[in-house]
Amino acid sequence: MTKKTDFLTQIAANQFTVGIIGLGYVGLPLALSFALKGIEVVGFDTVEDKVAKVNAAENFIGDVHDSDLIKVVELGVLKATSDFSILDMCQAIFICVPTPLDVFKKPDMSFIEGACIHIGKHMKPGTFVCLESTTYPTTTEDFMLPILEKESGLKEGADFWIAFSPERVDPGNKEFNTQNTPKILGALSEEGREIGEAIYSKAIDKVHCVSSPRVAEMVKILENTYRLVNISLINELALLSGKMDIDIWEVVDAAATKPYGFQAFYPGPGIGGHCIPLDPFYLEHIAKKFGFDLSMINAAGHINNMMAHRMTIKITSALNRHKKAINGSNILFLGVAYKPNIADERESPALKIMDEVANKGGIVSFCDPQIPVVKTEQGNEFQRKAYSKELLNSMDCIVISTNHNEYTADFIQENSALVVDLRNLIRESSEKVYKL
Amino acid sequence: MTKKTDFLTQIAANQFTVGIIGLGYVGLPLALSFALKGIEVVGFDTVEDKVAKVNAAENFIGDVHDSDLIKVVELGVLKATSDFSILDMCQAIFICVPTPLDVFKKPDMSFIEGACIHIGKHMKPGTFVCLESTTYPTTTEDFMLPILEKESGLKEGADFWIAFSPERVDPGNKEFNTQNTPKILGALSEEGREIGEAIYSKAIDKVHCVSSPRVAEMVKILENTYRLVNISLINELALLSGKMDIDIWEVVDAAATKPYGFQAFYPGPGIGGHCIPLDPFYLEHIAKKFGFDLSMINAAGHINNMMAHRMTIKITSALNRHKKAINGSNILFLGVAYKPNIADERESPALKIMDEVANKGGIVSFCDPQIPVVKTEQGNEFQRKAYSKELLNSMDCIVISTNHNEYTADFIQENSALVVDLRNLIRESSEKVYKL
Repeated sequence: MTKKTDFLTQIAANQFTVGIIGLGYVGLPLALSFALKGIEVVGFDTVEDKVAKVNAAENFIGDVHDSDLIKVVELGVLKATSDFSILDMCQAIFICVPTPLDVFKKPDMSFIEGACIHIGKHMKPGTFVCLESTTYPTTTEDFMLPILEKESGLKEGADFWIAFSPERVDPGNKEFNTQNTPKILGALSEEGREIGEAIYSKAIDKVHCVSSPRVAEMVKILENTYRLVNISLINELALLSGKMDIDIWEVVDAAATKPYGFQAFYPGPGIGGHCIPLDPFYLEHIAKKFGFDLSMINAAGHINNMMAHRMTIKITSALNRHKKAINGSNILFLGVAYKPNIADERESPALKIMDEVANKGGIVSFCDPQIPVVKTEQGNEFQRKAYSKELLNSMDCIVISTNHNEYTADFIQENSALVVDLRNLIRESSEKVYKL
Repeated sequence: MTKKTDFLTQIAANQFTVGIIGLGYVGLPLALSFALKGIEVVGFDTVEDKVAKVNAAENFIGDVHDSDLIKVVELGVLKATSDFSILDMCQAIFICVPTPLDVFKKPDMSFIEGACIHIGKHMKPGTFVCLESTTYPTTTEDFMLPILEKESGLKEGADFWIAFSPERVDPGNKEFNTQNTPKILGALSEEGREIGEAIYSKAIDKVHCVSSPRVAEMVKILENTYRLVNISLINELALLSGKMDIDIWEVVDAAATKPYGFQAFYPGPGIGGHCIPLDPFYLEHIAKKFGFDLSMINAAGHINNMMAHRMTIKITSALNRHKKAINGSNILFLGVAYKPNIADERESPALKIMDEVANKGGIVSFCDPQIPVVKTEQGNEFQRKAYSKELLNSMDCIVISTNHNEYTADFIQENSALVVDLRNLIRESSEKVYKL
């Protein structure tokens, strides 16, 4: 029998071990997806605290059910470790590490590089290695493969197989999770595709194979570039609409009645999170190598970059109605998460506005039901205040920056002198309510 | 009883006459929608030929069923005229005239202006006037209203009512037509809204009212700007993907498996038709008055402008493989309509590419099952050739510019030396097939 048919037989019998590098919002749900099917999973992370928490079945990811984690840890089917030499026990290894951009919007590949060195040093022949971290097209073939071959001395296609399969995790999405979201898989070889499809099909309902890793890499970038471009478009039109006495939210709701050829995007104070503001710039990075400037991504990035400043101007204009300046005013931000009902403030536009308002002398504070403390890019640290009638009433201006379910239009309106509503929570503008 | 309640009573009893100015792809289907409900309709057009055809029940609009037109003309419920004085018989008047851009991408308002002058001169008190032509926000209030009031000596709100309701006609769409596509309605006054809603509800399944004409104007612009921006985005990514050895069509198909937050747009040789390439530039025009540059529309327009040139380069590269130049080569374009299975070549990218190829000395010809002759922007006139095996075989290069149902991948591949496929009709690239 060939290595491939051996492997496929093991997969069919659930007799293989999955290794997952990176126990964050992508890796931990993926680990659970396999472990809940009775497949042995080892989770790897350099952060000891995460390793200890997983082994103690203490959940730290919003989309993971506590009871699921407890179940697989008690059964012994999921273990975590910071000892990467144990990768030699894993036949299927998934890389779910961060891929941040540096301050110059250049990809920071160090996490992928580190994971590949660990894998290369320890993997046994016959291993399937798959990258899930979002990155620029060509990464799997031109960046990951050389490291793996060099460190391992093994040959792709003969001794091991590699693939790219983009994570499609949408934090807070109650309908779609790791298991029921179709998985794109682009392997380098036909054997790799067969093996990868067999492995993912254990944990995930539908696997959609494409012809190469670079196609799979581009798929993820396209999905998030689509979102960046459309949110930026509607934000730009929102700023114009404000000047033209047009309620852009009403426009979007009406356009959404078109039964074909339209998808609604709503404006807001800017784009946050760990995907949409970053992923398109991976493509912009590699495009330069091919002599391309991506004008749509450029324009969208520019709009997103200026949103915090434009929102600060909205706050200035609102306060001006009350003959007040930002300097010396008490300004409370409701919500610092980048989207409602999650505990994640990465790249959140609220933080950027808070920095700018603080720079102008505003006395900044915030509430958030899920986030107790934040540190901004400029290094400002804010402790949350308790959300109350008294707090709202004590402020010169309330900024609705995230529309968490806890915030209701009536309560805020009744207890505020002035509201800047960046989320259309209060649907009507008025003397007191200044809308984006 | 007030004028309004009188009017609503007449509407309820179908005792009112509809006037429709402009008997094109918007006006004629709208006229039919009312007439088929037994409401008397008079169609107005300055083009005598259209008037004569309607009165003879000779259909000239693809989306209109011949039998419907024959039925309402025979019943005498639809008549057409070029005599605008008959507008005095109409209680509900709809303006469905062209709103082109001039060569400097400035709105040409002369058709709307002409219609408003006719209406102003002839309408009786108690008339509802509604603009359906796509135009920049504020047109109804700031451009149309002053003309109507001046010409008629009547007062909006007291003597007549105005509104804007964007046409949402999608030529060739078999599922959605004038009747079953929700209608956006923005009237200037609350009375106008009540009357307009009652009138449209006679002919159209669902009417969605918004707070003002300018909101309704913006709705239509948003819908088509969304399409311009997304098609331009995917066209730009297609050009990059070509360089990166990535099949962009495969990428879009894979991204479309994402069950939320994505809508698929496919690349092509550029954007055609009478809406998407034009409408966003109406907004760009008025935005300047408000001190705004719309960077997303700018970038998208720029991409669209360069597509014909980029496609000419693709043809050059394909011919180069056969050691041929455009100059002196026989180049056949399959399809000149701007989208498949319709007989409309307005703004079609094929025509622009044909001009550029002809400028470079290419011997250009075309086939199209629905269009017998075309005249390009540069004034080149082409007669279609009969689509045959022999014709294809006699060419140096076949360009698939519109994917009409008549064109099949196998037939074209078997009978061509070289194909440049701009529509992914032939899904596989090869020595012979050069894909966008």
